[in-house]
This record gives sequence, C-alpha cells and structure tokens, in this order.
Amino acid sequence: MNWRDSSLPLDERVEALLGEMTLEEKIAQLGSSWPGNEELNGNVAPMQDVFARGGVPFEQARANGIGHVTRVFGTAPVSAADGAARVAALQREIVEQTRLGIPAIVHEECLTGFTTYGATVYPTSLAWAATFDPGLVERMAGAIGDDMRRAGAHQGLSPVLDVVRDYRWGRVEETLGEDPYLVGRLGSAYVRGLEHAGIIATLKHFAGYSASRAARNHAPVSIGWRELGDVILPPFEMAIRDGGARSVMAAYVDLDGVPASAHERLLTGILRDEWGFDGVVVSDYWSIAFLKTMHGIAEDVGQTGALALAAGVDVELPDTLCYGKELVDLVRSGEVDESVVDRSVRRLLRQKAELGLLDEGWVPEVSEVDLDSPRNRAIAREVAEKSVVLLANTGVLPVGAGKIAVVGPCADDPLAFLGCYSYPNHVLPRYPELGRGVAVPSLLAALRAELPDAEIVAHQGCPIREEDRSGFADAVAATQEADLCVAVVGDRAGMFGEGTSGEGCDAADLSLPGVQDELLSELLATPTPVVVVVVSGRPYALGAHADRAAALVQAFLPGEEGGGALAGVLSGRVTPTGKLPVQVPRLAGGSPGTYLHPPLGGNSEGISNLDPTPLFPFGHGISYTRYEYSDLRLSAPEIPTDGEVAVSVQVANAGDRAGEEIVQLYLHDVCAQVTRPVRQLAGFVRVALAPGERARVTFALHADRTSFIGLNLRRIVEPGTVEVFVGPSSADLPCSASFDLTGPVRELTRDRVLTTPATVAPIAS
Amino acid sequence: MNWRDSSLPLDERVEALLGEMTLEEKIAQLGSSWPGNEELNGNVAPMQDVFARGGVPFEQARANGIGHVTRVFGTAPVSAADGAARVAALQREIVEQTRLGIPAIVHEECLTGFTTYGATVYPTSLAWAATFDPGLVERMAGAIGDDMRRAGAHQGLSPVLDVVRDYRWGRVEETLGEDPYLVGRLGSAYVRGLEHAGIIATLKHFAGYSASRAARNHAPVSIGWRELGDVILPPFEMAIRDGGARSVMAAYVDLDGVPASAHERLLTGILRDEWGFDGVVVSDYWSIAFLKTMHGIAEDVGQTGALALAAGVDVELPDTLCYGKELVDLVRSGEVDESVVDRSVRRLLRQKAELGLLDEGWVPEVSEVDLDSPRNRAIAREVAEKSVVLLANTGVLPVGAGKIAVVGPCADDPLAFLGCYSYPNHVLPRYPELGRGVAVPSLLAALRAELPDAEIVAHQGCPIREEDRSGFADAVAATQEADLCVAVVGDRAGMFGEGTSGEGCDAADLSLPGVQDELLSELLATPTPVVVVVVSGRPYALGAHADRAAALVQAFLPGEEGGGALAGVLSGRVTPTGKLPVQVPRLAGGSPGTYLHPPLGGNSEGISNLDPTPLFPFGHGISYTRYEYSDLRLSAPEIPTDGEVAVSVQVANAGDRAGEEIVQLYLHDVCAQVTRPVRQLAGFVRVALAPGERARVTFALHADRTSFIGLNLRRIVEPGTVEVFVGPSSADLPCSASFDLTGPVRELTRDRVLTTPATVAPIAS
Repeated sequence: MNWRDSSLPLDERVEALLGEMTLEEKIAQLGSSWPGNEELNGNVAPMQDVFARGGVPFEQARANGIGHVTRVFGTAPVSAADGAARVAALQREIVEQTRLGIPAIVHEECLTGFTTYGATVYPTSLAWAATFDPGLVERMAGAIGDDMRRAGAHQGLSPVLDVVRDYRWGRVEETLGEDPYLVGRLGSAYVRGLEHAGIIATLKHFAGYSASRAARNHAPVSIGWRELGDVILPPFEMAIRDGGARSVMAAYVDLDGVPASAHERLLTGILRDEWGFDGVVVSDYWSIAFLKTMHGIAEDVGQTGALALAAGVDVELPDTLCYGKELVDLVRSGEVDESVVDRSVRRLLRQKAELGLLDEGWVPEVSEVDLDSPRNRAIAREVAEKSVVLLANTGVLPVGAGKIAVVGPCADDPLAFLGCYSYPNHVLPRYPELGRGVAVPSLLAALRAELPDAEIVAHQGCPIREEDRSGFADAVAATQEADLCVAVVGDRAGMFGEGTSGEGCDAADLSLPGVQDELLSELLATPTPVVVVVVSGRPYALGAHADRAAALVQAFLPGEEGGGALAGVLSGRVTPTGKLPVQVPRLAGGSPGTYLHPPLGGNSEGISNLDPTPLFPFGHGISYTRYEYSDLRLSAPEIPTDGEVAVSVQVANAGDRAGEEIVQLYLHDVCAQVTRPVRQLAGFVRVALAPGERARVTFALHADRTSFIGLNLRRIVEPGTVEVFVGPSSADLPCSASFDLTGPVRELTRDRVLTTPATVAPIAS
Repeated sequence: MNWRDSSLPLDERVEALLGEMTLEEKIAQLGSSWPGNEELNGNVAPMQDVFARGGVPFEQARANGIGHVTRVFGTAPVSAADGAARVAALQREIVEQTRLGIPAIVHEECLTGFTTYGATVYPTSLAWAATFDPGLVERMAGAIGDDMRRAGAHQGLSPVLDVVRDYRWGRVEETLGEDPYLVGRLGSAYVRGLEHAGIIATLKHFAGYSASRAARNHAPVSIGWRELGDVILPPFEMAIRDGGARSVMAAYVDLDGVPASAHERLLTGILRDEWGFDGVVVSDYWSIAFLKTMHGIAEDVGQTGALALAAGVDVELPDTLCYGKELVDLVRSGEVDESVVDRSVRRLLRQKAELGLLDEGWVPEVSEVDLDSPRNRAIAREVAEKSVVLLANTGVLPVGAGKIAVVGPCADDPLAFLGCYSYPNHVLPRYPELGRGVAVPSLLAALRAELPDAEIVAHQGCPIREEDRSGFADAVAATQEADLCVAVVGDRAGMFGEGTSGEGCDAADLSLPGVQDELLSELLATPTPVVVVVVSGRPYALGAHADRAAALVQAFLPGEEGGGALAGVLSGRVTPTGKLPVQVPRLAGGSPGTYLHPPLGGNSEGISNLDPTPLFPFGHGISYTRYEYSDLRLSAPEIPTDGEVAVSVQVANAGDRAGEEIVQLYLHDVCAQVTRPVRQLAGFVRVALAPGERARVTFALHADRTSFIGLNLRRIVEPGTVEVFVGPSSADLPCSASFDLTGPVRELTRDRVLTTPATVAPIAS
C-alpha cells in the first residue's frame, strides 16, 4: 500500500508507513532539530551533563528523518521571504536526503503574533483577556495563523492556558488571567482561530506551571488534585473540546514531586483516557532533559527519554537530546517496549498526514506575505482599545486641551508596550544593530497626534528598572507647571532577567519596578491632578497611590498599536470597555492569592490581621458612560442536577455615550461537600448599548456549570442551593437570586456542558 | 460490674460504664464547657449563626456530664491556689450533681509554660528548636507538666508540630522550625516530658496549618499527599510513637478543599489505621462549628457535628456547640449511627480511666505549687542561653567595658521577649490593671547588671510597630558618641493583630515591623560598630543590614530569663551554641520557601531572576570558639534497603573556649522516582568540647531514614546512591561521602525506624 496516496484512509496510510519504518526512523520522528541554534544547547547550563557532546548539526540530526523543525523564523532576524525560503530548503533536504522523505512539522512561537522579524506585535494575552471578547480573539488568532501558514509553518506554540495563581510570576503577562472560565473561553477562541487557519495550536503549559512556589519560574508546585481539577485543568479541557486543539505541551514544573513531563496520570490518564485527546504532546523546550538534570528522577539520558515517553510525551523539543540513540538501545534491549514508541509515532504521523506532509508530490510552498499588514494592525488596534481598563476617574478623563506633563518611563518607550514573547523583546535584544522590524508609536507620540490642541511636555522621571532618581526633579517641576499630569509607569518585558516582566522575570513583591512608586508619590504630592497609567505584564499594588490619583488606567502590554489605543482612551475617542482579568492588589506583600477563594481565603477579620481584599476586584472596569443592572429573573426556582436555568437581567446605558459593557454572571455554592469559592465567574458577554438603550441579557446556565471535584476526586453536580449574581465586576453584583438543584448527585463524564451561552435582546424604550 | 473498681481491667470498666450511659450522657462526654467565658462564644463572629443562642452556663452544659473543662486557669488571672480551688469546686459540682458523677478532663494551654497567672514563661518553641537539645526540652516539659498536674490540670494543648512553610505566618514562633526531623525529635522530647509528668500532651495542629495560602491564619492550604507525607506528617507520627502522645488536635484549615476537622482520611485513615493512634482527637477551638460557618461544608448544627464525629474528631472544644442536642436527635432518627458516638466515648472514657478519674472515691486534689520556682527559672534560663544564635561576628563580640549605646524598641521592653501564648501576652492585655505576674528583666536591665564597667546609655529609637521616627535622632546621636551600639529590634507577640508575631499576627513580608529597618539603616550609617540583636518570633530579612553590622545575633522570644541569657552571650559569660531552626532570608519578598526543596526550588540561575538563597542557612550558628570537621567514615560502601550504615566524623574544638557544637547530618538522594530535597537533615547531636578537644561523632543511619512517599503514595526505601554530608549547617558541609542502597524497593510499615541515634566518643590527643 502506498502511504503517499491521499485518497486512502488516513489511519491506513499511517499504519502502512509505520510498517515500513526502522526503529531508528521511528524514534527520529519523535525528535526535533533547531537549525542555526546548535550552540544554544551546549550553553544552557542545566543541559550540559546530558548534552556534553554539544549541539548536533541539522544534517546529522535529520539523518533518519526528523519530527519537528524548531523556530527557523524565530531564531535570528530574517525577512518573511527569506525565512520561508530557508524552511523550504530544509524541507527539501529532509525529503531528498532521507530514505522515507517525510517532511518535518515546522513550529514557531506565536503568543503576541508570529514571532518573527517584522511581524505584527499584537497585545499580550493578558490584554486579550481584558477584552472579554472571544470573537475578537478568534479573529486575531486567525490572522496570526494565516500569516504563519503562508510562511510555511505548521504549528504555533500558543496559547498559554495557565490560570494565574500568583501575580509575581514573570509569565502572568502570557496568561489569560486568574479565572479558569475566562481563560478557557478566550483560549478556545484563540485555538479556533489558529486551527481554522490550518495551524496546529499548542496548549501550554500542561499543567500547574503558574502555581510555582513563590512564583519563581520552574519552582515546585504544591497542589492537590481538587485544585488542579477545579482551577488549572478546565481551560485545557475546553480548548481541546470546544477549540479543537491538536497539541499540548508538557510543563517544566513538578506537581507534588512528580514532574509534569513524566506525569503519566496527567499526560495519559487525564488528557487521553478521560478527555479523549488524540493529538500530539510535545515537551517544553528541554523539559525532558530536565527530568535528569533538574528534577533528579532519572539516571541517564536513555532512562530520561524512556520516562517521558512512557508518561506520554510524544515529541521532544527543541532538539533531540533524550529521544535518540540511547532510547533506540533501550528498545533493542527490551527495556522499553516498541509499542510505546509506535503509539507516539502514530500520533505524529497522523498529524503530518492531516497537514498533507505525507501526500505524493508534496513540496514546500513559498508564498508572499505581508507580516504587518493593515488588516493585522487594525486587529491589533481593536484588541488594544478594548483591553484598556479604566480603574478610576474623578472626572479628569477624558482629557482635551491644556498644558499636559507626560512623565514616567513607559511614556516614550515603545518596547515597554510589547510582551516578552514578541520578537522585538524576545530575540532582537541579541541583535542590537537591527531596528524593531515593526513601527511601534509610543504613547507620547500618540498623544501628541491625538491632542493637537494640548501643550505637551515630556520627562522620563526615572528608568523602568534602575534605581535612578536623577530625573525626579524635572518631572515634578513639569507636573507642577502643568494643568494635568499623565504618569505612565510599568514594565519592560524581556527574558530571564532582561526585563521586569516575562519568562524568568519574576517579582519578589508587587511594588512597581525600580523607583517608579517613589516617582508616583512625588508626582501625586503636587497640586496638579495626575492620571496614573500603568502599562504592565502583571498587576501591581497601587494602594499607596489610588486615593490621590485623579484617574487610574491599567493596560496590559498592548502591543504595537497600544500607544494609539491608550491615547484614544485618554482623549475619549475610545470609550473604555476593558475589565480586569486579574485583581489589582492594594499591598505589595501578601502574595499569593486570587479572587477565587473560599471564605477563609478572603478577609477573615478577627482571624488574621492581613486583609487580602484587592484595590480593584476581578472583572472591574468603568467607562465614560455608566450602566444600570436590574430585574434579575430565573426561569425556574429549581432545576434537576442535569437541568438548565435561564438567568436574565436588564442592563441599561444610563450615561450619555455609546459603550460596551461586559455583563458578568457569578455563582456561589452555599453548601458543598468540599470548600467552594465565595464567587466564581460562570458567564459573561459584551453588550453594546447606545445612550439610554436597554437590553435583556440571558445566560443559559446548565447544572453542569455548578460542578466541582468532589470528595471522591470525581467531578460532580451536587443538589442544593446555588446563588447567582449578575453585575459589572466580581465585587459589584447588584442583582442576585438563588435556585435549588434537586435530585441525586450526578457524576459527570467528558460530555459535560463547559460553557454558559448568553443572548442579548434589545428592550424597546 | 462496678466500673469504679480500679482493680478491674481498664477496657472492661470502660465497656461497663458505656453500657450504663444514656445517649445524652454519652454525647455530653464528647463536649466541653468554658466556665467563666460564656460570653466569648457569642462574641466570636464566625460562630454567631451556629450559636445564636449565646453561651451556655456551666450548670446547664454539664447537666448530663461533660468531657472537658476548658482553661479554668487560663481565662482570667487567678493564683495557682485559687485556680486549683476553682477546678476542684467545678469537679465536685460535676461529680455531685450528675447521675454518673464522671469528672471532667481539665485542659490548659502550656506552649511557653503553664498558661496561667504567675507561672514561668519559658522561651517560645522556636527558641527550644534553636537549642537542638531534646534532653533539655524534655526536662522543661517535665517541669511544666509537674506544675500543671499539681494544680489539678490533666491535659496540655501543646506541642505545636506544624513544620514551618512560610515565615510570614504569625504562628511560626509557636513551631519547632522548618525541618520535620528537628520538629519531630524535639516535639517527641516535649511530649515525653509532659506525659511522664502525668499530663496528656496534645499534638497540634493536625495537619497542614502552617502551609496556609500567603501565610494568612486559617487560609486554604494547597498541598498534595506527597508533601503532606514527607514534610507535614512525620513529626506527628514520631511524637505518637516515640513520644507517647495521647491526644491530637484537628486543625482549622482545609487541605485541597477538605477541612482538617472533617478529614476522615487524615483523622482516621492515617492517624488511626496507619499509625495505630488510640488516644483522643480534640477539635481546635470552634473548628467544628467552622465547618459550617467558615468552610461551608455543612447545612446546620447537627450535620456539622455529625461530619466532624464521623471523620474522627472525638471531643469538641472549647464549648459544646455542635456535639449537643442536634447530634442526639440525629442518632435517635437513625441518621447517625450510635456506634460512631460510642467509638469516641470509649476513647475518652479510657483516658479518664487512665487518669484515675473513674476510680472509686476520686476527689480533686489541691496541692501547693510555686509556679515560678527557682527550678523553673533555671530551666528557662538554660533553654534561653542555648537558644541564642550568633549569626555573624567581626570580632566585636563579646563586649566588655566602654561606652555602649543600647537602642531599639526591644531593648527595654520585657514583654517583647515573651511568646504570644505566654500568659502575660495572651490573656493579661485584657486586664491592664494587673502586673505581669512574673519578673521579666529586660535586656537593658540585664546588660547593666552584666557589664558593671560599661557606660550604658539607652534610647528606644522607635516603637516596635508604629511608624514613629521621632526617636531616631536621639538614638543615632547616642550611637555616634558611643564605642559600640547594641541595637535590639524585633517583635512584640500578641493575639489577632495585637502584636507583630503570634496567632493572627501574620506578616505581608519579612521586613522588620514598623520603621525598625529604617532605624537600623541610620544606626549602621554611623561609624560606630553596631551589634544587631533580633529578638523575634519569625526570621526577618536582614540582607540590607548584614554587610554593615559588626555582629548579628538572633534570639527567638527567649522568655522571662531571656534578658539575662542574651546579656550573657553578649558579654561572653555564655558561649553561644544555638543554631537556626529556620533560615534568615536575605530579601523581605519572595515568600514562601524553606531550605527543603528540590534543585528547582533553589537558586536556578538562568531560569528565574529571583534567588531564594538565604542570608543565613538552616542550621547555621557560630560561636566564640570554632570547630573543625574531618575524616568522614562510612561503615560500608553499600547496605541493603533494610540495613544500617554508621556515618562518623571527627569534630575538634579548634578555638580557645569550651563550647558545644551541634553536629548535623544531611542526606541527598541522587536519583529517585520523585523529586527529592537537595539537602535534608537526617541527624544531629550536641557535642561538648573543651579547647583542643576532639571527638568522633557516629550516626547510626538506618535505610528507613532515606524513605519517602513514592509515586504510588506509599512510603518506600528505594535502592540507589545516597549522599551524606556532615557539618555545622545545611550550607557548610565540609565532610561528605556516598553509599549505595541495594536490593528491592521496600515499602515501609508503621514499624519503620524514625530516628538516627548519635554517639559521641572522645578522641585522646
């Protein structure tokens, strides 16, 4: 049988090909190569004793074929055309120089857009989360996927579905916030966009990475199965079932002593047996080798690979270190069963077949692509605009004419608006001779364009990170002489300590980096009203400033169009609509903690002197108009434990500007067999309302959406009273009611209802 | 059969009595009453909806008998004689006014000594831990137990065996530090002392309390079974098996959603079925009612009681709230099986029989007791002296004559030396008209006595807690004029926010309370050498001061004799011997974290910018003499997985003062099926050495001591290489070697070896 015959059934082609392969060829498919980056392996300290032999050149790595080719676009700056040509050449080499000629899957990073030189830098994930807008996120991912596919890539290493547990973690900016339902809904939307464009989405990091001890990158995770099942895992399940994700990445961390990359219960028991996932599990970069070098659970290279493979890691990234000749030897000696190898090879080949890589006559296509097209920039702008959160406003916003002092280190530093995984912050720092590749207007530049009648003076005040107060005096003087001060503070993202946010840029506490808190204090001590604009990858504690600020604006690394978006919000051209996907804390200490907690996790007066109540709650965000909530109705006072109740509420735009409000539905289980959160987001919808307009928002809430991991560690719906709340934030819930779940405890299967659809019906006035 | 006949077998007497009891009488035995404190129940906010009926007077509470009488001594200030008389009167009332006449068990707090007016205030537990001296702790507990028994008490609610996981927790001062073996050894010693004196020891808090989120009192605990089994539970197992503890207290917190006070697997599965514990489990105060009011896992009072009882909480403290008539009704209606009631009643009655309370003719004895006897004070002094840790010394210590500025808020505040659970800090704040009951010389007073030739000037500098800098100038001026400054900073312990350390006094970060860090900075900026003395209930971050301090001394709330002990160390009369039972961190942020971590929990250069390496490591402490370690020998290069190896090392006093060195043995499992700590304490011993003297210290290390909770959640000994290290601290280990464990993986039973005996043999010079 000819496995290249695309008219034959896919599974049969895969079996036919598998039958033709030698053991070396099979195992080679489970590996990868990072051409042009051979030196990196030798230079990653934790790797050295696994890979003392140094990097393997591509020609050697692909001798028996290769599963993945790693980051051809993302390694060094190349134009889209050059990158595509390079990919095509590598593929041709594989096809022509190996016995079976199976092309590689080409993967790339794509968190804030296709991570290559000159590609659009979209807002970071935490900003998408602030939009609460799945449709928009899907469109954005579609555009990203479209560009990647046309450049010759097959797989994107996004989205990040880690649910935030500690704001200090450097990778908070890469997440979709602290609520599993929000993460799951937006993550699924992103996956749909990417997958519909023909790019394999990779859900990461599976699982628990965000809960590392003290928020230090890779640190151990103290967690039980219930927290894992109720908080950490649901977004992955949603993105697989509702999003159709075809790949999952195993995380670096250990969970209660068992590293995720060797965690059979997680990678096979839950992911495949419980959820029915049939795609490919890839390792995080070097996470297999880490089993030996950093986790100490394997003796040598062969055992390391065998452990990961047996647990369910199908493909090793970014280079073949442990899925190599030592693994071949273990299969030959009978210590590893070849069926375990075949299981993973089958999954990968099936994916290659789906991509057309096994088809007769396949040749790499190279097509023209404008990586920073007007379409892309329009989407980037829309996401940025919808992601800006107006936290507080005494009335000073929107701003118009007058003398405005624009100060702070993020006002005129466009890189401060880009996420860590954007190409300009991620790779370009190694190439100081190059420009950014894309145009990123700063907020200062955008404000000057936005406010032609204003007299704008600008001072940095201080750097983002260094303890340099020499610019304070000028900034304060300029503020004193101005009618208004716009103070722009926050992060500069980067990798492994290069930045204040991003991978390996963890925070010891939630004070603003460097001396920015001191700068704010001095500005706020002047009589001039100060608008504090925080542009950051994580929420920072603003308790010391909030009472004195004339307005507070939070943006989460809003990308290359962020300057214009923020300027538009400040000027009033854009009516703010974003909501907080993470709380803004009051105090710099007291981490970790998020809004998801049982009563004893919150303010427990008389029990602890510490009050973790945030300054601004999850879901918070105001606007230049205002909304009124009323008339909550339930379709029934009780439903069976497999039933559905309609929860509806009337929302009115009571202000004088058109706007969009994110209407939020929260639940509270009054009494359960285990502790349950005081409030948990169960539904949300963006509602556009003209001034004076009213609408009825109806949530179709299924009983499954009240489910949780019970005492016996199975997911259940329990009879009893459920309180429902609707309102503009998790702490401002003007409408509430309760209903009863009746009947027996129900144990849920993989077919459970995962979402709460919402409909919006206008009400005639 | 006459159950009062003490000549009959105990079990038969218990069964006979049980057979005579009505259901009401049985359930009454599972309850308690806090006479004189009826109002408190109504005033504890979380209780109000369970106990809206208000406090029940003793006369009503004991109508059908009563299990425990709560804190007659500890509630309001009474003399020992008056307290004993009050107890005797209550017991007589119970015996005479109830049908069966079964006396109550009288329990008291006793963490830093018998918690009653005028009793000796010993150092707090964290100070005992710094002594690494089980024999001394046992003597101290014996003295405490002796006083309690003579006053008419039967049970003490100590020791605290929570293993520190986060230094910010207010109750760190009540613990024995961050290593389970140290906690277990010293906890067992304390239990032996108390139990041998005839007082029932109560192990608390079972389990996981110390791992609450962000170290907030009662906050949820994220933890898996492996961390629980390897870190949290071992001290309890040791104190039951090696200490003979007869009671265990269920904790307030929930573990991964299941409250400890309703945790059947913990309270029955592990405690009784696995470990064979046959004593009595008591609730923490109100922890049963919390199941409803704070955890939300029960609907009403009856269900709340039924849940706790079924899980294995035998006795409700401090008052009968949920083990009352509602529980009687549930048994009558068949919803609760009477056998569950009988199970707990049997355990309690057996304990009462052991105490002689069921004997014919029992009458309460009242004997004279001097609660602050010279014997007590001598022990308190010895513990205090051995607990002071000299962290660093440029040579300025010991101090002699000269002009000395003694500054800082803890220098002349004797209450700053007492733990939260000492009577003067715990109860007396409610009685401002009374004195402390015991004499507590301050460090300033002790120094004046200790250094008659010195010219001492004293300034407070600032308060412990308030942000008052008005005293800085005087303190700095005095320091500038002095030859030496002794700066005494730290905590004032208290309850629920009254203090800076203690129950409900949690810290947002590890900076010194109030403006003490600022005071230190100003003092250290003077040219005068400054000895920084920290007297605290938790370790504080000293990274900002360490380089500039002439010496650093750490004391952990050293009790009523602490002033003299510290003065003795400063003057050199006492040679310092204490070692750190908790790390002293460098940075105020970055919690939680302790020395027990796998590689990725420590400094991971290139992975996270944060470095959790402490300023001073676990086990650290220097002296006025110095010790040399050499010649590590192993009795065998390999042993079977059920074998024993002798690890010996030579230790010499290379200085010119007699001293005692705490020799520490650490292990590292090179490769295991789960991640294992980089270093873990496996043995220690205090060795007294004259100048020039040498000794060989030999640890008998059993293979069981390398055991851990394996992948299958059972405790195992795994074959493979084990590294052993011996030295003066966890980070200074000059002697090392390794041996192999050979043979099959062994699964351990309850008979496993829990300790590592050490012997010390002098070496002739």
